[in-house]
Amino acid sequence: MSAIITLTTDFGQNDAYVAAMKGVILGINPDARLVDICHTIRPQNILEAAFILSTVYEFFPQRTIHLVVVDPGVGTERRAIILRTPVADFVAPDNGILSYIVQQYSIMSTGTSTKPQTEPGPGLEAVAITKPQFWRSPVSPTFHGRDIFAPVAARLSLGVPLADFGEVINSVTVLPLPHPYRAPDSTLVGHIIHIDTFGNLITDIRSSDLPEITGSMTIEIGNHVISGLSNTYAEGEGLVALIGSSGHLEIALAGGSACALTGAETGSELRIRQ
Amino acid sequence: MSAIITLTTDFGQNDAYVAAMKGVILGINPDARLVDICHTIRPQNILEAAFILSTVYEFFPQRTIHLVVVDPGVGTERRAIILRTPVADFVAPDNGILSYIVQQYSIMSTGTSTKPQTEPGPGLEAVAITKPQFWRSPVSPTFHGRDIFAPVAARLSLGVPLADFGEVINSVTVLPLPHPYRAPDSTLVGHIIHIDTFGNLITDIRSSDLPEITGSMTIEIGNHVISGLSNTYAEGEGLVALIGSSGHLEIALAGGSACALTGAETGSELRIRQ
Amino acid sequence: MSAIITLTTDFGQNDAYVAAMKGVILGINPDARLVDICHTIRPQNILEAAFILSTVYEFFPQRTIHLVVVDPGVGTERRAIILRTPVADFVAPDNGILSYIVQQYSIMSTGTSTKPQTEPGPGLEAVAITKPQFWRSPVSPTFHGRDIFAPVAARLSLGVPLADFGEVINSVTVLPLPHPYRAPDSTLVGHIIHIDTFGNLITDIRSSDLPEITGSMTIEIGNHVISGLSNTYAEGEGLVALIGSSGHLEIALAGGSACALTGAETGSELRIRQ
Repeated sequence: MSAIITLTTDFGQNDAYVAAMKGVILGINPDARLVDICHTIRPQNILEAAFILSTVYEFFPQRTIHLVVVDPGVGTERRAIILRTPVADFVAPDNGILSYIVQQYSIMSTGTSTKPQTEPGPGLEAVAITKPQFWRSPVSPTFHGRDIFAPVAARLSLGVPLADFGEVINSVTVLPLPHPYRAPDSTLVGHIIHIDTFGNLITDIRSSDLPEITGSMTIEIGNHVISGLSNTYAEGEGLVALIGSSGHLEIALAGGSACALTGAETGSELRIRQ
Repeated sequence: MSAIITLTTDFGQNDAYVAAMKGVILGINPDARLVDICHTIRPQNILEAAFILSTVYEFFPQRTIHLVVVDPGVGTERRAIILRTPVADFVAPDNGILSYIVQQYSIMSTGTSTKPQTEPGPGLEAVAITKPQFWRSPVSPTFHGRDIFAPVAARLSLGVPLADFGEVINSVTVLPLPHPYRAPDSTLVGHIIHIDTFGNLITDIRSSDLPEITGSMTIEIGNHVISGLSNTYAEGEGLVALIGSSGHLEIALAGGSACALTGAETGSELRIRQ
Repeated sequence: MSAIITLTTDFGQNDAYVAAMKGVILGINPDARLVDICHTIRPQNILEAAFILSTVYEFFPQRTIHLVVVDPGVGTERRAIILRTPVADFVAPDNGILSYIVQQYSIMSTGTSTKPQTEPGPGLEAVAITKPQFWRSPVSPTFHGRDIFAPVAARLSLGVPLADFGEVINSVTVLPLPHPYRAPDSTLVGHIIHIDTFGNLITDIRSSDLPEITGSMTIEIGNHVISGLSNTYAEGEGLVALIGSSGHLEIALAGGSACALTGAETGSELRIRQ
């Protein structure tokens, strides 16, 4: 069974940067199955890539390798890492792009607010990618995706042991992630963390954050108020709130764009009252 | 020989929805060959997806499986179906997205103008997808592409018999498709049904609709008049009319965009006089 | 080991043209590995495709087949060719799209300035694609990508000898490529030849064109002046100049778009003073 390697970048569609990475991988592991996740992450938007990756990796077979290159610090001192979880391997710059993955393993942050370092935690292993024998040579200081990350992912897919790529590390960078909070009047305040192609507003509120009985719940976003939860986009008229396919509360507009209607942006708040 | 599964959606390029479907498929059939047809169908534009699919499916090997998810009614009572033709299988919501495919088998419409139901017709078989044992569990009410259509397509590619997925059905939904008509003055009136990347205007007129001798034919679109047919885009200057690669009459502008020049839109009429 | 076939076109993302080519290829060689390089080449921009292809082909395994279809002259007398280099095969219209590839083999131009014909040169072989038995039939005069180039690439990947596709030719079309030049005051004048997704400005100046000591070098673009070279995008503030991953001098803006800041376009000049 061929190894699967997914690719997530901010390289866009108009250049050959993604293809260069694929060429390098296929030169090392001709049997690798390559699957694009997304290449239109907004340039250098680490948290957007982090979120998108977190919504999709668990739908791939066990031991899929996820190559993630949104890397504004390429060529600087920022580390390159491999993070191994019980289900998958991630090859990425250590810039916080794996924050949601690490968070799902509920490990304690030990760092500062700007660049917290976090212990990989139970079930996680991490190494710093430091052994050049697994890289292309010479390494372009501006394209580690092609010259370091791609060949490392390809060799990992051939079964090279994790420890061969560099030293084991005890912490990885985790960025502060938005979290819903309870306001003094006991309103639950959440945030828009992603806006999808349809203009659906995806929030940091999960179904477990909501009251058990949602019938009398109201959701305020901008000057719009939504009553209760729907099951589907097509249900009801105007704005609807529902638990989306990633398990997050979403605001949608049947047949239209909730983003366009509400003017909400990533980071905008919404308020939930019982 | 590996099964081929194609994917056509309105999920866009900026999310991981397509990748989630691919992950699910590869988890069930690791040998499936996945080929993207188009993921930038305008949101919820069923007829656009229907047309694009109809122009391409016959160029794939026999028994390719086409997974088509433009699904504004996801989670509602609309059916999910598999349509089997002599050359291919289609896995899709039963919302008219297979209208052009069904039409090519010349079967009689038995339905109403808004949502005609059509007998699958000679050579066609159809089942409603109703057996949850082939789905992911739980099913998100907002993403049947990932939780129902993708696993059904994957299992179909492994040879699960059609009838195992649900009961045989005798009709599928066919939407009213544009057709050229003859005006009282014997002008042939056609419609723009698709505008491609180059701004070429693709019409519902086929070469068999045109007179045998096209030399004296004129084509009027907006306030532009084109005389006769060309063979290639590069021939002549200004607007040209030709039989395009899908067998439809196209209006093109050598080195430019016929769409931008004429201001035509999907649905715009053109008139052909002998 | 499966043959790799890459695809580069100006067909965009919104149609099924690329998928039609893939369907045809898989019908002939079901084991072919298909890799997209870029499909958003600006319509009919031969030189853009030529440059992008030149930056990526060498990162693919030996004997990869590169299918390149930016073809404004489709259906006219322009030739279709296969160019074989020591590392790869290229299947393309003979319209200059392989200019950078041919140039890399340092062969003499023997043609005129508008459409120079160039001898393939040492190490290169070329044939005109003229034998219809390897094509789809009938051939659409507007889509040779699907009906000629794709089936030829697929059969080439199965080991059909080069000479079977048509007669050996002694020259291929090479377009005039931008080159840096020395102004009378000994300033080195280069040109922007590509602007990437990040707004980085990629020039026709290679590191070998630059003085050995770059510390006192200044680079002028529009009314901006950059001193010396950086190693990484993140280094310094404002505009930086560096040798990019394709070996060309690039102008970049840390955390922003050099294109937006400078207003530079493809063809814009930059000046380098010692």
